Amino acid sequence: MNAEIIAVGTELLLGQIANTNGAYLAQKLAGIGVNVYYQTVVGDNPKRLQTVFEGAQKRSDLVILIGGLGPTKDDLTKQVVAKALHVELATDTAALEKITAFQKQSGRLNTANNRLQALKLADAESLPNETGFAVGDYYRNPSGADVVLLPGPPSEFTIMVDRQLMPRLMEQGTENGVIFSKVMRFIGIGESELVTDLSDLIDQQTNPTIAPYAKVGEVTLRITATAESTAAAESRVDQMVAEVLKRDGKYCYGYGDDNSLAQVVVHQLIERHLSVTAAESLTAGEFQSTLGDVPGVSAVFPGGFVTYANEAKVSLLSIPQHIVDDYGVVSKETAVWMAQQAKAKLATDVAVSFTGVAGPDKLEDQPAGTVWIGIAYKDQPAEAYLFNFANGRAQIRRSSVLTGLNLIRQKLMTN
Amino acid sequence: MNAEIIAVGTELLLGQIANTNGAYLAQKLAGIGVNVYYQTVVGDNPKRLQTVFEGAQKRSDLVILIGGLGPTKDDLTKQVVAKALHVELATDTAALEKITAFQKQSGRLNTANNRLQALKLADAESLPNETGFAVGDYYRNPSGADVVLLPGPPSEFTIMVDRQLMPRLMEQGTENGVIFSKVMRFIGIGESELVTDLSDLIDQQTNPTIAPYAKVGEVTLRITATAESTAAAESRVDQMVAEVLKRDGKYCYGYGDDNSLAQVVVHQLIERHLSVTAAESLTAGEFQSTLGDVPGVSAVFPGGFVTYANEAKVSLLSIPQHIVDDYGVVSKETAVWMAQQAKAKLATDVAVSFTGVAGPDKLEDQPAGTVWIGIAYKDQPAEAYLFNFANGRAQIRRSSVLTGLNLIRQKLMTN
Repeated sequence: MNAEIIAVGTELLLGQIANTNGAYLAQKLAGIGVNVYYQTVVGDNPKRLQTVFEGAQKRSDLVILIGGLGPTKDDLTKQVVAKALHVELATDTAALEKITAFQKQSGRLNTANNRLQALKLADAESLPNETGFAVGDYYRNPSGADVVLLPGPPSEFTIMVDRQLMPRLMEQGTENGVIFSKVMRFIGIGESELVTDLSDLIDQQTNPTIAPYAKVGEVTLRITATAESTAAAESRVDQMVAEVLKRDGKYCYGYGDDNSLAQVVVHQLIERHLSVTAAESLTAGEFQSTLGDVPGVSAVFPGGFVTYANEAKVSLLSIPQHIVDDYGVVSKETAVWMAQQAKAKLATDVAVSFTGVAGPDKLEDQPAGTVWIGIAYKDQPAEAYLFNFANGRAQIRRSSVLTGLNLIRQKLMTN
Repeated sequence: MNAEIIAVGTELLLGQIANTNGAYLAQKLAGIGVNVYYQTVVGDNPKRLQTVFEGAQKRSDLVILIGGLGPTKDDLTKQVVAKALHVELATDTAALEKITAFQKQSGRLNTANNRLQALKLADAESLPNETGFAVGDYYRNPSGADVVLLPGPPSEFTIMVDRQLMPRLMEQGTENGVIFSKVMRFIGIGESELVTDLSDLIDQQTNPTIAPYAKVGEVTLRITATAESTAAAESRVDQMVAEVLKRDGKYCYGYGDDNSLAQVVVHQLIERHLSVTAAESLTAGEFQSTLGDVPGVSAVFPGGFVTYANEAKVSLLSIPQHIVDDYGVVSKETAVWMAQQAKAKLATDVAVSFTGVAGPDKLEDQPAGTVWIGIAYKDQPAEAYLFNFANGRAQIRRSSVLTGLNLIRQKLMTN
């Protein structure tokens, strides 16, 4: 199948934002064997959008348009596509109800332009928008290329791609048979190290294929196989997964696109009835906020401490002033005390602590990226480990949070 | 002048990298009044590249191709363009000398493919590559759209754009003159409501133009004008900004692409020497973590409390148990107590509190999105306000954090 991506939006055309949605989708499509030969960016201009859309209809099997589904006058994608395909627009009642319910609840105006977001191509299958109001479309075109419409805001777009579009495309398959793929998720190993460990497998890859992808603090591998049946494709994938696990299994924390280290760790804690807290300095609440992302975490997470300044470490956690004075705030001893005291104050089973240098400036003469992470587990003496992270304040803090989660995971593996 | 950008490279098409070059160039072109109506990404495939190039020749005055000038077999842009334009390729002697000198110095092989990088379209003006070997081209086409060829690696591309291409284009000028634009940032008003307030301005827009853009919890407007000079364009923009401020000024928290509400609020606090803390329930540390994103926040932020469970509200903040029991945890009274107690415990000037329902489940029979945000300021009695947010756990928490920041901003405006 040959697909083509059209991103619509003047902000893209003017270069105010880069077309990251296009890259995201192209990668997902490549992962399941859908060829993408063209990507186009066009502004919020009906005539030019129509020209591009009609050109795409001629040369591709599937045309995916991103953006222009919102409530403003600029948002014309549905209208232009409907006109070009000679189909009507219809209202998706579920989407309209969601909009009306929100307007009622929030007391916002029930403006006509907001209701436009519930429009879809008549005869298209709606793609529900879990994180926004503009409904997506999957139009199976009886007389040309199929058409998919997706919203532009990345928070809506990525969820709709992962949960609505990809399952439908995979179910449909390609001329090569059925596609099955599995994402393996790794923490504690860099992309180049992982790729080196697997270089012979990657060099020989045909079916399954192995696609590595690096994010902040973690790496994923997508293993994709095609076969005559899902079961046969899955079995090919599973053989490769087993081979990868043999080599780097200890770094693999989970599977799936829509998974995260926080989810994995929180679910392990819930399963084992272990409560958790934290004392955070440089991360300033980001670790606890990441726990809070996971629904159901309230069963194991009572709360915790943000102790950014030294006084707060002393006053909130009752750490003896001389510990901070003698060893410094960026030290093993302070990290150990922070974890120990947080655990004691909230009477949890596990506590993690973070103290270090987020940057850009040095602290106690230590460079940005120097981070001590402590962990206290049940009656065991608390421990702390030194890490060196890079690439600026945001990545140093993010890497710290992921590493703290990984320390819990490792502790649970051996206890 | 209407320009069009074609980025060539399979790595772009597969989404392995986002087309940041396209965004960079589009922004530069917009800044000097060159319209860009189309951007296309195409792989390293001669036939498809030729089709896209010929389409662009027909509809634009200037076609800028990025990438495919390197030494490998994949790099075919010059060859394809030369063929489509029916012109020969010639060697740029300066570029060839640079390549040969480097090979001599580094002891690398003088391979034929490396010399390909010195090729240019005959009759084109060479664009020297200061940070690489592939020479660029500016071909003034006697019988169609002008053609510019630029290298793909961003370190070569950006320098060639800034030092070679932009001076040539500016010398040439555009029929519309200079462009100036300003971004206004809003919080506390939805995109559709803002657009409704400004509908007459948006309907009449010609110069300046008004482009709204919605992110989670905030909206931006880009006001763009063209004029014969920067000063004249800026003055047109400023008149429109003033008109927008007259209508919705109370929601406008700042200006600029590279700005955030957290930055604005933290800088205001630093300027006024006001310290801040928080007590967070549903946001679980995200508010404090957002403060922690801003370098320099340590001057005003000692730390704070994550009180996810009711016990933590009682034990960490010493809120009387009967307050939580009598009024419920999702209540004005609990939010007021949380803010009050957090402020007292850390002796700050300001404290913000968050208690509500992140979802997906109801809490105390209140739906997901119901959030009370409290604020305690100096000696004033603490207050709390009710909000209703939507679109899932992550957006409800994010909207709460931004609204908490906005409450501080509003407090500082009137105090």
